[in-house]
Amino acid sequence: MSFRKLILISALFSLSTAFGQNDSIAIRKFFDEALIRGKSYEDLRSLCKGIGARLSGSAQAQMAVEWGKRKMEAYGFDQIYLQPIMVPHWERGNKEVAWMQSGNGEVIPIDILALGGSIGTNGTLKAEVVEFKSLDDLKKASKASVQGKIVFLNQAMNPADIVTFKAYGGCYSIRGQGAVESSKLGAVGVVIRSLALPEDHFPHTGSMYYEEAVAKIPAGALSTISSNELSKALAKGKVTLILEMDCRDFPDEPSFNVMGELKGSEKPEEIITIGGHLDSWDAGEGAHDDGAGIIHCLEALRILKTTGVKPKHTIRVVFFMNEENGNKGGINYAEWAKKENQKHIAAVESDRGGFSPDGFECDGKESYIQLIKSFAPLLKPYDLHHFEAGYGGVDISPLKKSYEGIPLFGFVPDSQRYFDFHHAASDVFESVNKRELELGCASMAAFVYLLDKSL
Amino acid sequence: MSFRKLILISALFSLSTAFGQNDSIAIRKFFDEALIRGKSYEDLRSLCKGIGARLSGSAQAQMAVEWGKRKMEAYGFDQIYLQPIMVPHWERGNKEVAWMQSGNGEVIPIDILALGGSIGTNGTLKAEVVEFKSLDDLKKASKASVQGKIVFLNQAMNPADIVTFKAYGGCYSIRGQGAVESSKLGAVGVVIRSLALPEDHFPHTGSMYYEEAVAKIPAGALSTISSNELSKALAKGKVTLILEMDCRDFPDEPSFNVMGELKGSEKPEEIITIGGHLDSWDAGEGAHDDGAGIIHCLEALRILKTTGVKPKHTIRVVFFMNEENGNKGGINYAEWAKKENQKHIAAVESDRGGFSPDGFECDGKESYIQLIKSFAPLLKPYDLHHFEAGYGGVDISPLKKSYEGIPLFGFVPDSQRYFDFHHAASDVFESVNKRELELGCASMAAFVYLLDKSL
Repeated sequence: MSFRKLILISALFSLSTAFGQNDSIAIRKFFDEALIRGKSYEDLRSLCKGIGARLSGSAQAQMAVEWGKRKMEAYGFDQIYLQPIMVPHWERGNKEVAWMQSGNGEVIPIDILALGGSIGTNGTLKAEVVEFKSLDDLKKASKASVQGKIVFLNQAMNPADIVTFKAYGGCYSIRGQGAVESSKLGAVGVVIRSLALPEDHFPHTGSMYYEEAVAKIPAGALSTISSNELSKALAKGKVTLILEMDCRDFPDEPSFNVMGELKGSEKPEEIITIGGHLDSWDAGEGAHDDGAGIIHCLEALRILKTTGVKPKHTIRVVFFMNEENGNKGGINYAEWAKKENQKHIAAVESDRGGFSPDGFECDGKESYIQLIKSFAPLLKPYDLHHFEAGYGGVDISPLKKSYEGIPLFGFVPDSQRYFDFHHAASDVFESVNKRELELGCASMAAFVYLLDKSL
Repeated sequence: MSFRKLILISALFSLSTAFGQNDSIAIRKFFDEALIRGKSYEDLRSLCKGIGARLSGSAQAQMAVEWGKRKMEAYGFDQIYLQPIMVPHWERGNKEVAWMQSGNGEVIPIDILALGGSIGTNGTLKAEVVEFKSLDDLKKASKASVQGKIVFLNQAMNPADIVTFKAYGGCYSIRGQGAVESSKLGAVGVVIRSLALPEDHFPHTGSMYYEEAVAKIPAGALSTISSNELSKALAKGKVTLILEMDCRDFPDEPSFNVMGELKGSEKPEEIITIGGHLDSWDAGEGAHDDGAGIIHCLEALRILKTTGVKPKHTIRVVFFMNEENGNKGGINYAEWAKKENQKHIAAVESDRGGFSPDGFECDGKESYIQLIKSFAPLLKPYDLHHFEAGYGGVDISPLKKSYEGIPLFGFVPDSQRYFDFHHAASDVFESVNKRELELGCASMAAFVYLLDKSL
């Protein structure tokens, strides 16, 4: 080990000496509150079971806004506010159906979900399938080989990536750009292998995009098992896909970001935002994505308030609307904050599921990364160990445009099970473990407490 | 930070420089093998679904021995051996039933499982209930208050303990000693609150003990929901419990520890044992306890062999029989090894479930604790971060008697969900996540690889 490394480690430890035994005691209280008298699990139940899936523009999303406002009022937060925004409104319509038919005429049903934003098939769409293993392979294909066909993008997430979000990032383009690239070569539709790790029957939806100058074609996701079956059939010969999807766009709808605060005791004008997103995809109940993130932030503020913490700065919890298909909530929040001359000093997001907490990441200057590393000794008793440079979150990212240099922080739970549930009908309340959720809430409270003390 | 601490940290890091880039590459291969071409999930499925619960002395336990031997043969391990042992044989008999009846005559069904080793009720047992919140409270009670009654030990695991095994340890005595202490005061039966964290309808069984001079009374575990209901009813007045359990002991049965090896290339006579236990309780499928541990060790050895590792020492995987109610496997293994003049230099156990891996603990001298801490930098990319003094495991613990100073190591996965399943009908294959299991297998392979290189 070099002397420089020693100095670095020494500096790291000495930063942490800014905290004392009182801080340890405070953090222990946060965990006790979450684990013994916590409200998080029942709050998540009411969001998931009382409302369920809540895609932007839906009645459920509107009810989720009401739910959020009522919760913040019930917990006695300060300055509860609904920020009006306009959001996209896309509907799946009736359930989708799909079959594949091989040369021998046998018809096999296929698990499918339209991708969010896709046009419908306008009746039955029937065409031969051509398979590609990646978007790059598709781009290299000839127009003749794709024209008039349904493109099947069968890229599997890499199971060897230890952090599953990395594997997700590696496949993201087949969902986002699959329709545009397929259409450019004359395809009449596109189906992708779900961005998911397990082999099961759940298709996973998610946003996809069209381009002005390129003809819109329908786009759907197949379950991993259906993808394997389709690929196997294609290896033997020609396969036709028969597909019907009724989804379509509607005019934008009014909606809201929901926010409430603990007013700062020393610098009330300086704001630390903590948030997740209230909307979800329309399959499942948005339990991990991002019901858990909403609850982490709600419960963290309740814990701080209940245990008598008087933060220096104002801690504002924001339930962002429309992260999934537009990020109108995040964009409008950052613009509004700037227009109102609010002073934002940091933001923290939870949008990686309700699993056992690992730590936090920092999208910001080196000094902020070192700052969160200095939290490590105080949080080690709670098995928090990941304090690294990394990503904040989609909802808070527009704040970077409004506030140059603002540090953004992302809550990092264990990622192993996230893509079992993400954007699928399996993302229901029962997939969230009570203790894992509670530990996440207390971790968020502890992190925000230390951040507030440090800034 | 003191200078001494700096030196310690420096020493810690310099130990790790014993490892080089080749080791990083080898470990990456272990994880790739586990995650891309792994056999662990299907092997666990065959153990859980093909055999199921496998209590010592049962036909299923015998089939599990056959299963283990066949697996080791199929993977081409060296020196496959069945060590004959005698094990207890207790059977639950027909399913247990219980009801509670309050003063108003209303009868409410209760979720119950006999504790392992309990005598039956010999027909219907009907008696008034007296509740205690801990074994200490019971010990302080008067004979008059307990005589002729059924004792209800309603001690909840402490949810504020971050490591759930600590909370389990805090309640363990109500299960182990509840019958003896109740009987001493003249009770006719004892029921305990299940050693479990969630509020649900699953009773959790486990071993209990009688003493020679104290009359044996039947002992059962209630689900946490039934425990809450019973306690609530008792708060209002007298409650009678009506109980029937058909369990009983049978004569000891012959059984086996199952073992196979990778022969050492430099010091084949020096043995590192890695193991878990093949038996399980008779509820559920013993998936986390300890199917996962069996699979961790089986797959770790398969990975080492498949990736071409030639260990210095002999790595022996042992599937121990009878951890749950007697530890005859562990005790006999240690005695046999000593009698045979085998040279044992270390042992590693996995018996804490198939969850996301956190790290390893060491029950041994400070130098061994420092040694595993030196593994940390190489294992950080896999989110392994817990390398501490701690516990090895029940099966390997008798080795300490045979080999003074032998270091024992315990695999440490995340503990949050363990007591949702432990010893209950919910401990089935579906409760184990594929990736979490696979990461555990690779972690075990990596740890054993580094240990073998270091000793």
